Amino acid sequence: MRVRLGAKSKSFRTVSFDPVRNEVILIEQRLLPHKFELFGCKDFRATAAAITDMVVRGAGAIGATAAYGFAQGLRAFRGKSLEHFQAHTLEVYTTLAKARPTAVDPVNAMNTMRALLEEAKSIQERQDIALRAAENFADEDARHCQEIGAHGSGLIKEGMRVLTHCNAGWLAFVDVGSATGPIYAARDKGKKFHVYCSETRPRCQGATLTAWELAQEGISHQVVADNAAGHLMQRGQVDLVIVGSDRTLGRTGEVANKIGTYTRAVLAHRHKIPFYVAIPLSTIDWNLKSGLEIPIEERHESEVLGAWGVTNKGKREYVRVANPSSGAVNPGFDVTPPELITGIITPEGIFKPKDLWKNRSRLGG
Amino acid sequence: MRVRLGAKSKSFRTVSFDPVRNEVILIEQRLLPHKFELFGCKDFRATAAAITDMVVRGAGAIGATAAYGFAQGLRAFRGKSLEHFQAHTLEVYTTLAKARPTAVDPVNAMNTMRALLEEAKSIQERQDIALRAAENFADEDARHCQEIGAHGSGLIKEGMRVLTHCNAGWLAFVDVGSATGPIYAARDKGKKFHVYCSETRPRCQGATLTAWELAQEGISHQVVADNAAGHLMQRGQVDLVIVGSDRTLGRTGEVANKIGTYTRAVLAHRHKIPFYVAIPLSTIDWNLKSGLEIPIEERHESEVLGAWGVTNKGKREYVRVANPSSGAVNPGFDVTPPELITGIITPEGIFKPKDLWKNRSRLGG
Repeated sequence: MRVRLGAKSKSFRTVSFDPVRNEVILIEQRLLPHKFELFGCKDFRATAAAITDMVVRGAGAIGATAAYGFAQGLRAFRGKSLEHFQAHTLEVYTTLAKARPTAVDPVNAMNTMRALLEEAKSIQERQDIALRAAENFADEDARHCQEIGAHGSGLIKEGMRVLTHCNAGWLAFVDVGSATGPIYAARDKGKKFHVYCSETRPRCQGATLTAWELAQEGISHQVVADNAAGHLMQRGQVDLVIVGSDRTLGRTGEVANKIGTYTRAVLAHRHKIPFYVAIPLSTIDWNLKSGLEIPIEERHESEVLGAWGVTNKGKREYVRVANPSSGAVNPGFDVTPPELITGIITPEGIFKPKDLWKNRSRLGG
Repeated sequence: MRVRLGAKSKSFRTVSFDPVRNEVILIEQRLLPHKFELFGCKDFRATAAAITDMVVRGAGAIGATAAYGFAQGLRAFRGKSLEHFQAHTLEVYTTLAKARPTAVDPVNAMNTMRALLEEAKSIQERQDIALRAAENFADEDARHCQEIGAHGSGLIKEGMRVLTHCNAGWLAFVDVGSATGPIYAARDKGKKFHVYCSETRPRCQGATLTAWELAQEGISHQVVADNAAGHLMQRGQVDLVIVGSDRTLGRTGEVANKIGTYTRAVLAHRHKIPFYVAIPLSTIDWNLKSGLEIPIEERHESEVLGAWGVTNKGKREYVRVANPSSGAVNPGFDVTPPELITGIITPEGIFKPKDLWKNRSRLGG
């Protein structure tokens, strides 16, 4: 998508790869929305750390980052022994898989790549296959978001007020975004509408990333405190909710997504407001039998106890907001049950959450 | 209540009055939890500004501040003409009434005082009556919170996890607090339990003030992001919700309180978790016929777009969090309907919200 750099505007992908320098290149999302910078990861450990430290975040983007990181790790191998190469492959895989335990995309992407590697004989061949597979994965991710947009854009009618949560925008994917796919596609069809970006404490991805994206694209929007969603719905000021998902259970239709998603689903249900989840197929987990099995990442309490922002002197600072002697709980995700979800927008069309399983062959399950 | 000042601990009220200097003295709540300081208001305009600027906030505390401010304004009158005094009285009244339009306590307190003034003949007598009435108002406010505590403490059982929202603690009243009344009373009975303080964006009164209060009193607690309440309830980690109210409609049982209260009520209802509202009688509005008539203050967008805190160098700073070119909506309050409220804890006992009206003679209506 486009980024405004001074008077000009230039296209970027969230995740890309430099094969000559064997570097994964990321948009440094922790500096956004205040500063636009690229972040180069020199080896697979740096790439895994960038995922853990949230230089990059979002289901598709970390999937593609892990895919490139996996290829990067394999390509860095200098020995001749296939046995050593296989041990190295496992180490790269494990390091990247551990980087964000709740997410399923990195593991899915790397599993697909590993299956392809089986067919190859030489180390060199495996390294080449890994790079091509990573490139394909990234291209597919962007294309799937465009298809989500094509299927979902009809849900957005002229004049609607659309509520989003967190960032399932192009910064969460290689390009376009899942929850923003329908938004960008509806805009491209000439529709006018307004988007409320949930602030999304504690990391504020709605206020920072989604608001930044929508501003780059010139789409009418406002930030709302997470606390205000219920009031806006009660007063009839929200017509549609679209969110993304970090992991959707193909068997049950349960949706794991950023903490606070469940709350918005409960509120939307009470107010009979359509609640849609937009996902690429890679986000579907066909194995787990219950949302209770999804590991919920407990993140560091400092996120809840303070906030990152920019002072009036332009300096990026963390400020401690909460009482200095108090601690916090900080679950990163929650799980929304299928009965609260109107539909799941996929690259293959819109499905009732309970219908994912019977359509699993179409949906890559 | 007690405040820890270094190794010592000293009692303070949130609002008090120095009759010699004719000054209203407030705990400077904008500096909490990072710094404890008193804030003197030299005249009634300064007192009104302190209410508007939220040096002091919370239903009872701003009621008492307005009562003292009203007395302060009347006592500052230097003329001899009763007619001029009455015009001055009206000006003081209007200035203080306008300071926070959603709240009902300042107006209720001043109306009671004005009725008492009618009986007096001289200006001097009116000035004396006003001071005594303000002192009575403040003492009653503290006593009512103790009575709320006595009625509500039985709801808190050993080992419970109690969720609060915003600050309806002693900092929101002259002393003790409404939502914290049952908490302090249960603690005084020797019960052990844990309190989750909702962060309460955008102004974070839960993370700052309630957490600070509970820390002063040594009560086990943690801050949670507003987004996490639903998840905690879904996982069975919340046993009871107690909140305060800025205005409760005696006719309908609707409760206006800090933005986000409605969301917690909807969530608690879904999870069959008892949801209580603790209020002094002064907070009941017997006139309005619908929650839609309650003016919802739209506060400045900068509150949502950033956060106040303390840098690692100990400096109090505002940081801009959101995308620099984005705006925000910032409703300060929401309205919770009676069907979501288990009970209303008052100094006169616990009532179903729909039963307030038929008990209005007991409840001061």
